[in-house]
Parts: sequence; C-alpha cells; structure tokens
Amino acid sequence: MHSLKGFSQSPPAITSATTSLAFFNLNRSTVYRSAFIPMNRNMKSSNNNLLKVPQTYCRASLEVQDASPRGTDLQVHGVSQTVVGVLGGGQLGRMLCEAASQMAIKHVDAATLEKLEQQGVDCQPKASTIRIIQDKYLQKVHFSRHAIPLPKFMQIDDLEGAKNAGDLFGYPLMIKSKRLAYDGRGNAVAKNEDEISLAVNEKDQRPDPDDLTGDRNALAPLEDMLVVYMSKNGHHLLRENICHIVKSPANVSWKIQKLATDVAYKAVSSLEGAGVFAVELFLTADGQVLLNEVAPRPHNSGHQTIEACFTSQFEQHLRAVVGLPLGDPSMKTPAAIMYNILGEEEGEPGFRVANQLIGRALRIPGATVHWYDKPEMRKQRKVGHITLVGSSMGIVETRLKSMLREEINEDQPAAAPRVGIIMGSDSDLPVMKDAAKILREFNVPAEVRIVSAHRTPEMMFSYASSARERGIQVIIAGAGGAAHLPGMVAALTPLPVIGVPVRASTLDGLDSLLSIVQMPRGVPVATVAINNATNAGLLAVRLLGISDIDLQARMAQYQEDRRDEVLVKDDKLEKGGWEDYLNS
Amino acid sequence: MHSLKGFSQSPPAITSATTSLAFFNLNRSTVYRSAFIPMNRNMKSSNNNLLKVPQTYCRASLEVQDASPRGTDLQVHGVSQTVVGVLGGGQLGRMLCEAASQMAIKHVDAATLEKLEQQGVDCQPKASTIRIIQDKYLQKVHFSRHAIPLPKFMQIDDLEGAKNAGDLFGYPLMIKSKRLAYDGRGNAVAKNEDEISLAVNEKDQRPDPDDLTGDRNALAPLEDMLVVYMSKNGHHLLRENICHIVKSPANVSWKIQKLATDVAYKAVSSLEGAGVFAVELFLTADGQVLLNEVAPRPHNSGHQTIEACFTSQFEQHLRAVVGLPLGDPSMKTPAAIMYNILGEEEGEPGFRVANQLIGRALRIPGATVHWYDKPEMRKQRKVGHITLVGSSMGIVETRLKSMLREEINEDQPAAAPRVGIIMGSDSDLPVMKDAAKILREFNVPAEVRIVSAHRTPEMMFSYASSARERGIQVIIAGAGGAAHLPGMVAALTPLPVIGVPVRASTLDGLDSLLSIVQMPRGVPVATVAINNATNAGLLAVRLLGISDIDLQARMAQYQEDRRDEVLVKDDKLEKGGWEDYLNS
Repeated sequence: MHSLKGFSQSPPAITSATTSLAFFNLNRSTVYRSAFIPMNRNMKSSNNNLLKVPQTYCRASLEVQDASPRGTDLQVHGVSQTVVGVLGGGQLGRMLCEAASQMAIKHVDAATLEKLEQQGVDCQPKASTIRIIQDKYLQKVHFSRHAIPLPKFMQIDDLEGAKNAGDLFGYPLMIKSKRLAYDGRGNAVAKNEDEISLAVNEKDQRPDPDDLTGDRNALAPLEDMLVVYMSKNGHHLLRENICHIVKSPANVSWKIQKLATDVAYKAVSSLEGAGVFAVELFLTADGQVLLNEVAPRPHNSGHQTIEACFTSQFEQHLRAVVGLPLGDPSMKTPAAIMYNILGEEEGEPGFRVANQLIGRALRIPGATVHWYDKPEMRKQRKVGHITLVGSSMGIVETRLKSMLREEINEDQPAAAPRVGIIMGSDSDLPVMKDAAKILREFNVPAEVRIVSAHRTPEMMFSYASSARERGIQVIIAGAGGAAHLPGMVAALTPLPVIGVPVRASTLDGLDSLLSIVQMPRGVPVATVAINNATNAGLLAVRLLGISDIDLQARMAQYQEDRRDEVLVKDDKLEKGGWEDYLNS
Repeated sequence: MHSLKGFSQSPPAITSATTSLAFFNLNRSTVYRSAFIPMNRNMKSSNNNLLKVPQTYCRASLEVQDASPRGTDLQVHGVSQTVVGVLGGGQLGRMLCEAASQMAIKHVDAATLEKLEQQGVDCQPKASTIRIIQDKYLQKVHFSRHAIPLPKFMQIDDLEGAKNAGDLFGYPLMIKSKRLAYDGRGNAVAKNEDEISLAVNEKDQRPDPDDLTGDRNALAPLEDMLVVYMSKNGHHLLRENICHIVKSPANVSWKIQKLATDVAYKAVSSLEGAGVFAVELFLTADGQVLLNEVAPRPHNSGHQTIEACFTSQFEQHLRAVVGLPLGDPSMKTPAAIMYNILGEEEGEPGFRVANQLIGRALRIPGATVHWYDKPEMRKQRKVGHITLVGSSMGIVETRLKSMLREEINEDQPAAAPRVGIIMGSDSDLPVMKDAAKILREFNVPAEVRIVSAHRTPEMMFSYASSARERGIQVIIAGAGGAAHLPGMVAALTPLPVIGVPVRASTLDGLDSLLSIVQMPRGVPVATVAINNATNAGLLAVRLLGISDIDLQARMAQYQEDRRDEVLVKDDKLEKGGWEDYLNS
C-alpha cells in the first residue's frame, strides 16, 4: 500500500468536479492558461470493455517536409504542407479532421503513421506523457510529486486491499481501473463495505484485474459535478448535470475559477508535449480545488467549443501540435449546452430513438446536430451529440427541455422571459404596463410580477437572486413613495436594474425618484423619469441591443419614426398656422 | 433592342448594392424569409476567363435509398443514408463537405452523379432555374415579368448597341457578359462613350463576344456598396467595402432591410427548386431597392455565416436540398467581417504574401483562417478567406486593420474603446474619473472626452451619431446645472446612455439630477445618483455583462467583495464596541 502525503485531516466532502483544459504551443514559449473543458463522465457503470487505443497526434517530421518539391521555405504554403497523423478513428478524430479541413491540414492513416514512427517521427503527446497518463495510479503519483492538490488515493491489489481503503478513506469509495478506462468505464462506486466485492466484480471483464486504485469520493455527489471552461482573459464555467449534459458557463465564483485555472496550469506544466489537455478537477464544499485526472487530448465535454468559442478545441489542438500560434479559446456566445446522444437500445430500435431526437433538434433554433455515423448501435454508446447555443442560459435550457420532450411546442423556446417587470403594488400597474407594451412592440419576451420589498421581502430576495439563472437579462422595477424595491433588487443580482419612480399621493413623485436614484457607491440603479415606464422599456431594449443587432436596428428605426411623427406635426403647424393647429 | 417597362423618369443614382439570400425547404411548404448574404464583387476587371461549371447540387433519388439494406424506413439513420452529389470542386464544394461531415451526409463524385442523372435523379436547383440564371439577360427578363424592381437594362449585340445604351441610360455604364461570368469577371464599366470600346474589348477573351447586356450604374459608386443579411426574425445588414471585405451587419435602416427582404423573397419565389439563393440588390439614393442578379447557391459573401451564425449557409443549403427543417440563420455574434484572400502575385511570391497574411491572422483573437489549398496561385484568384467575429463592429474593424498591417501591435486589437465617458467641462473630471477607475478595474477599454452640449454642439452631434459605428457600446455622460448632455446624446444614438448628475455650485445637484432624469417619453437616460460616477461605471459593467459572461462573473465577485468588507467591519464593531470603533 502506498499512502499519500498531504491530507492530515479528514478530507471534506467533495461536492463538485471541474475539468480544466490548458493549451500549450509546441515550443512551450507561450503557455496559454486557457480553456477548461468540461468532463463528460458516464455515470452508469458498464460491462463494455472495448480496448481503445488512446488518441495520439503525430506531427510529420521535418525530414518529410524537407523532401517536398517546394524547397526549404517550409512556411510558404500555410499549413497545407503539414501532415498530421491521427491514431484512433472515433468521433474525436473525425471532428479533428473537420477542423483540419478548413486550414487544409492533411491527414495520414495509422499504417502510414507506424512507418513514420519507425523513421523517428515526433509524436504529440510525448511517449513519456502517455505512459504517465495511461496508468491512473502513476498519474496521481506524478502529480502529487508536483505538489498538486489531490484527493486521497492508494493502490490496491485485491478485495482485502479495497476493504482497507474503505476503512482508511471512508465511504462512498470509488474503485477505478488503473489502465484502459474511458467514458466512465472501469470505475465503480462502493457505498459501503458490503458493496466492495460487487464493485470489484464489475471489473471482472476489465483488462487487468490486478490493477486497481481506490479513490475517495471521486464521483459523489453526482448532481454537483461542475466543470470549468476558461479563457486566457478570464474564466468561463460550465456546469455538468448527470450523464449527458454539459452546460457552459457554470455558476461558480470568480475566486474558484482562478483557483481551478491555477491547479490545472500546474498539472499541465508538469507534463511534456503540445496540444490540448483535459484536466478533471473536484471542488470541495470548503472551496478547495483538487485534481482528479488529466487526458492529453481534446475531450467529449469540450465539443461545444465548436459552435460556442472563437477557437474550437480541435482547431486549438491542431494549432498546438503543428506549431502555430494558439487561437482565442473564449466563448463567443453567452451560453451553450452540449447534449450527448447515447444509445438507448441495441440495434435498429436504438437508431429509431436517436433519429426522433435528431428530428426534434433540427427544429430547435441554435441547435447543431453532430452524428458520428457509427455502424453499430449499443446501449450507452456515444453516437452523436447536439450543441445548443444562445444569448442566455435560460433560453438555452428552455430549448433543451423542448428538445427532450416528445411534443414540440413551437412557441415554447421563445417564451423564456428576458426582461422581468416587477412592482411593489398592483396600484403601480397602470404606470408599469407601458414598459410591457414597449417590450411587446419590440418582440422581447417579458414577465410581469408583483414583488413587494416591504410586504413580501423573502419573495423579493428569491426573485432577485434567481433572476440571472432563470435567463432574465434585465430587471425593470417600479415603486412609489419610499421606493426600495429597485435598489434592493440591484443589491441581490449582478444584472442591470432599471428603476421607475411611480408618483405616490404627495410630493409629485420626488420621494420615489430620490429613493431610487440616490443609491450608495457599489450598487447602481438605472433610474428613469417619474412615471415613465415607457422609457424603462426603451432603456431595456437599448441595453439588450448592445449585443442584439436586431434590437439595436429596431431602436434606431423607432427613433426615426418618432422624428418623422414630429416632422409631420411641424409641417402641419408651419402650413396651417398656430390658430388652426390649436383648433383642430 | 429590348426596352424595359418601368422607369418613366430618369432613374436615381444607385448608391449601394445589397445581396439577399433566401432559404427554401424542399417542399416549399415553409418559405424561410431568412438570410441575405452579402455579395462579394471583385471590382477590378480581369482577363481571366476560366470556364467554370456552375455548382449544382443533386439529391440522390429515392430509388437509391430504397436499395439500401436497411429497408424502407428511410428516416431511421438520420441523414447518414442520404447521399448528396456536388458538381464543382472549388471552395464552395469543399465548405459544403465540411458542413455535411458533422451530419454524416455523404458525397458522390461527378462521374457517379452523371450516371445517377441518367437514371432520373432529381437535381437542385432545377434545370429550368439554372437555365434562367445562367443567362443574365434572360434572368432580368424573367424577373421583370414577375414585377420585381430592376435597374434599366437592354440586350446589345455590338459596339453600336453599347453606344446606344449609353445614350439611353447615361454614364457610367456597366457592360456585362450574359453568360459564364463569375467573381466580377465578364463585367466592365465604361465611364463615357470613349471608354465603350475599351470595355467591350476587355471581353475579347470572354466566352461569347456577342452576348452583352448594358446595365446602368450597376457598380457605382463602389464605395457605397451595401449588402444585407437577414434572419427570419429580423434583419442583419452587412456593408461591403471595395473588393475583399464583407462586413456584417451593415448600417442600413430597418425600413430598407424590410424592403430588401421583400424584393429578395419575390425574386426567389419566382424560381423553382430548393436550397440557398444569393440575391444581389441595389439601394438607390431615394431608398428604392432594385434587383441585380440571383445565384442559386451558397455564395462567397456568405462565408462568415460559418462562424457568425447559428446555421451556416452550407448547412442550411444541405438541410434544404435533403428535405430537413431549416436552421436558424441569424447571427450569434454581434459583428463579423469576412476578408477574401486574393492572389497578389503569380506563383511562389503569391504564396509567400498569402502566408504572411495568414501568419498575422493566426495571432488575431476571433480570426478563423480558411485555406482552399489550390495548387496554382494567380493574381486575383480566391485562395482562401479569413473571418473575424467579435462583440462589436469597432472591435472587429480594429482587428482587421491590425491584420492587414505589417507590424502587429499586440495591444491594438484590445484597445478599441467599448465605453465612452464624456463630460461637459473639465471641472467635471474630478467626479467622472471614478467611472474611468471602475472600468479600468474591470478591464473594460474606455475613452474619456470633453464634449459640451452648449459650447461644442456640433462636436456633440458628431460624437453621439458616430459612437455606435466606432464600436462604442455604452456612453457615460456627466453634466451639472442645466445638464443637457446626457439627454441630447441619448437622442442621437440607439446606444444606452448613462447620465451622471454632477453637483453644481448651488442646489446640491438637484438641478443636474432633474435635468438628466426627467426625459420625455421616447428617449431614456439611465440616471445614477448625484456625483456617483462610480455607480455609472458599475452600471456600464452590468450592461456589458448581459452578453459578456466574464464581466457578469466579475460583477458578482465585486458584490461579494463589498459584502465581505462590510462583514469585516461589522465583526470589528461587534467585538470591539462602538466607542473603540469610533476612536480607531
């Protein structure tokens, strides 16, 4: 038994997992503290033991390039003289080829690759890295030597060793095969000592029955799995739900994002070679980030980078191994969800189910279907994926729900409100309705609610705190008198809040105005004129128009139309004179 | 001579051209009034007369599918049983194949396609459509019969006929080959009668010297060429500059967008067949939209749809011809520019120049390189393209400029200001600096200017009117006393304007506050507390955070940090008591 230095106290419950992806260029001269790629773990155990060769990307040797008829100017023809060999013909290789095509990078097959290897062709990642990664126990030992925070682990050889691990680490206990595991296979959770032999037996068909590691709490609790996607300028987080779904970004604090990037960076820095590395991390309840494992390649959970990011993980990987500058990995759309299409039945029935799902997906705005065209359908087999992108997580989640139902409600995907119009009392409604009218005119979906800071304070708290994750992008809050609603809501959300001072019975609305506008430093409210909910609606449209070209164009047209109205009136006045005008 | 009914008066100068792209599904049951694709016209005349077979997309016949071993359930295997044949092996076919790969749609080569045609395979677009499109004169006759607005045109057979056209239509005069023209080849402009023979001779190497049409003002003035890109929910406009560049969207009013969509819709409705149609339009000075010509296929000027839109033109075309529901063609990024890589020299030197450009592009955030891998380099040959996408046109334009220069200034691409901080007087600067500080803290590039509504009214007009196209997304305007700046600026731009009331010498800032907040219906200003430029900066960050996940996360963290500061103080007060607290 090999025990790990490190944790002297009982480790806290691991509440979530994150995956980090770091990019390195070939010369290691620019380390790109960039993308975290979410890990898509298949939580269901499986007896499937397909031997799968891990993907290796080989860069053609300089010798081959020197032999080209174009002489020694290697750079002249872009990268179209570069030949990349890909071992492993699954969907990751396929998507790599799609990315390569646009840059005219060519590929060779595995047989040719073997010949090149014999000639001394350079491979990425390095053999030394593959050796480390392939054995999960060696992997952990390597990282622990580099002072990277890890959960407790130990090597076990038999059932007895597993029980010892259970005694030492507690339950639930994760038991993993050291080698040749993928897509969650080769792992099993024992919830107590009695389940250990069951978990070990689940591996009877495993490649090497004597290689096991015990890993405490590696997969618990499943619902809280988080993944992290980061760009060099900051951090984007992704949340992963059970099994199939990866959401991007996720709702994790800025501090945690930084911590996760740092751990991933250290982990990848300790390995040799270029390309994309997928780093899986755990987030504990007390805010620690621990390393789970590293895959030195593009990863299932990074597929949404194709549609959602400036540079996909595949293009990035090619850039890295070929020696080109790295691209910008940050997101270009605000929200994305990737949904894995897993086989639900064997054979034809499975194809039928998948086909129905695809049929619905093709009707969802912002959904892109990827079908891997595998000839055989098996349960739990990854046969494709669907990525949905959109301007807010709420919108994208709504569309996902729509896609997974059997009936499509054509209106549903568009219905998720982008603006929340709230007021402290229904006596404000005659004023606040003008905001709703404007938003309807501009086709912006909105909800209208009564939320009172003074009479329903808890409801106000929960409305404000949950608005962002529901997909609300702007809140319009109206109140009169001692008008606290806008300011309190602004304190509880990072969303922009527009305040409408409603004229109360005395003071002509001045009390409302000052209550709303005179916020202290740190918490702003965008205040409009007294009773002017029309302008609140128009301001909301302008805000959304920052990234919604349609809306911005319509706002410009709205302004032109108002101008034209006035010009007509001025024309009438000028022609007919002021007396006629007043009398008409 | 065939004269056209229609214009009874002298047609107005054509000031811009737009291209519309409409999508039809196979059954014509859903007409998708969707994407306008900008036209990329090569303005330089050329002697290159490569005979190029227009692209035709054939859908495999049902007979072929029935022969599949999987029986009669044609739908079960997604579209991976569907075979699409593509005639024409240039970059358009290549990009179509990239789109097909993700949906596992397969391709056949031209030889196989010919055999299928003999078996009665259905081709898209229909032969009848191709016949109409291929002859530009017949095309115009066809559309005029469908009451689609067109510029004046006539068929001419010789030099004499061209001079007659010049007399009738005036100069400049566009002379076009009727057949086999592409990429601007087969067109020439005669600026006066003397230039006619030169223009006609430029076509000496044209395929058929006897086929000419005269087209008034088709390409003038070049600088004002506009293109239109539209989605089914609205309109996105693109502006095209000389030669290489297509910008998306362009700055054209909503009314013009609608008009352009209508004309394009009518034009495409008059043709048979499924798939994407690129419709080129002109915009006249008096706001008319006239049809130039239609290409029944994906188009050069639509390449940015790959990175910038939810569904690329290639995927859309495949969906249409294969009979799948159409995807959402609208933009998913606020701004995009496509730059064609044209050969600048023959042979190796040309490759070298292109390579240098690509080397710079690979270092630009948000830039995606497409290299067509054509074996021969010629002047003006389209050898690739580069698409830049970003969160505002200003940012993307700055990056384009950076890419086209020889030196890369690494800071430059990021420097384009997103927020404009303006004030009526430098006496406001001690207050307004707090906004600049906040934006710097959040890494949001901002500019700080003195713009006085009263002392520099013209400058205020021009600043406000030009802010949007310069890439400014939010304006923070501060003023004191009779504070007119924020409101006037808000009247001149569709951007959101944040107003900061600066305390003037009397009235404690109340005059400023009311001047700014009490705007009339139609023109909102987002007003913050008196002298609270910090909150103006924070509000700007919240606004930008609507679509910038990074900023939104940082804002949430900022709020947490402010909370923690207070908690520390509260802790100190609780532990030490109020007397000690006051004394410390």
